[in-house]
Amino acid sequence: MAAGEGRLTLTKHEGSGNDFLVTLDPAGADLTPAAVRVLCDRHRGVGADGFVLGRTSKRADLAMVLFNADGSRAEMSGNGVRCLVQAAVSAGLVHPPRVAVETDAGIRVVELRPGEQGGELWATVDMGVPKLGEEVPSPVPGTRGRLVDVGNPHLVLIGPGAAGADVASVGARIERERPGGINVELVSPLADGALVLRVWERGVGETRACGTGTVAAAAAARAWGIAGDRVRVQNPGGWLEVVLDGPGGAATLAGPVRKVADVVVDPANLR
Amino acid sequence: MAAGEGRLTLTKHEGSGNDFLVTLDPAGADLTPAAVRVLCDRHRGVGADGFVLGRTSKRADLAMVLFNADGSRAEMSGNGVRCLVQAAVSAGLVHPPRVAVETDAGIRVVELRPGEQGGELWATVDMGVPKLGEEVPSPVPGTRGRLVDVGNPHLVLIGPGAAGADVASVGARIERERPGGINVELVSPLADGALVLRVWERGVGETRACGTGTVAAAAAARAWGIAGDRVRVQNPGGWLEVVLDGPGGAATLAGPVRKVADVVVDPANLR
Repeated sequence: MAAGEGRLTLTKHEGSGNDFLVTLDPAGADLTPAAVRVLCDRHRGVGADGFVLGRTSKRADLAMVLFNADGSRAEMSGNGVRCLVQAAVSAGLVHPPRVAVETDAGIRVVELRPGEQGGELWATVDMGVPKLGEEVPSPVPGTRGRLVDVGNPHLVLIGPGAAGADVASVGARIERERPGGINVELVSPLADGALVLRVWERGVGETRACGTGTVAAAAAARAWGIAGDRVRVQNPGGWLEVVLDGPGGAATLAGPVRKVADVVVDPANLR
Repeated sequence: MAAGEGRLTLTKHEGSGNDFLVTLDPAGADLTPAAVRVLCDRHRGVGADGFVLGRTSKRADLAMVLFNADGSRAEMSGNGVRCLVQAAVSAGLVHPPRVAVETDAGIRVVELRPGEQGGELWATVDMGVPKLGEEVPSPVPGTRGRLVDVGNPHLVLIGPGAAGADVASVGARIERERPGGINVELVSPLADGALVLRVWERGVGETRACGTGTVAAAAAARAWGIAGDRVRVQNPGGWLEVVLDGPGGAATLAGPVRKVADVVVDPANLR
């Protein structure tokens, strides 16, 4: 599907302002990290937080190969998988309401229903079981830190001190200090149990929304008694909803996803 | 050309990292400022520094209607007009090497030749006569200020103090203070007469390159004896070249321009 006189066919999608370029290529396109970097460059390329290659799967309806904007591979993105499923539904490759996707973090099931606005879908994705790790000292005064694994590694920093911290400098410093990098969430609890989240994504930088980070924040907040089983999380780009099925259970992430544009790129532009 | 089952057909181009969405619509599309804002939004839309609507002209080969990323109208952009001409040549509407474009700042002639890399053109654009205005006190220590009109208004701040200044805060403050806004260039002279420029564009923010700002900087630098008639200007996104034809004469701006992608947007996404 991505081919056509050697040109690369993409769609751009966004969920709460977290945007992905998606290409559906059952034949297996050979995209280099350099090509992904150019495509995701917001000034010299098309621009996105990440890149998703949709492939055929023997174990599910679809397989996801996920790249960060810097060309590195990522295991899982709750928003990325929702964008991929919207692209595949739009292309008629898979059919709503339930689509199973093979990811590097396991098989994830996405459920779709019409969204509130034109062109929008409401997508709920099974995010697996968030694994709470150890509590760690937080470099941000007025917050406590906890490691959480949601198929990819997170450091969640929760507390009243989160609101005043500079995400970019805190995130970049922590990512540098950890071998392999880590995603960092700065989370302020609201009075009603909802959370306000800002996020530094490994290999990307500060983004408008992060699905796995949203789940990690909800899991850490519940573990500390700050939030319950249903957690609304305000990402900078909009609200996402997490349902934690009970201690040790799987989480689901729900929110809107929107197809922005169809894009065709000449391979001469990927060098 | 922009129509097609109600969908909007665009191309994305960039010159030194200054990127524009271009639509060629002889029939006259009705694009609202809100639609331009959505299209130029880098997370919720396609993303660009500006938007160019190419129209038919009775006075030239083509007419340019130019918008900033915030949906406001702009008079002229040296990079925008070069991107428009590349789009029109690519669509077969006009033919190289010389294309005349009607802009709000007058008719501008663009000359094209093949670029150094695949997909790239080298485009030289006639920028009219830069009008040197008065010297004004500079808010940045170690720089001197001068107003320059290049079809749009600029405040050029030149001197060794420019390198250390924060473009975003200086630019935003100056733009706010001036009714109608202004573009602000922070310019460091190099030993060989070349200039290093950073730019705050009215209605856009800090960008990777600004064609009119590059010409304004060259004109101010020559007036102060810092540069000669040919000035190489390093924008953050790459080098541009200005030729000043002599005191009171017209300027030309030259540099590479590249088509990045073909884009199709559903109108449901422009609301």
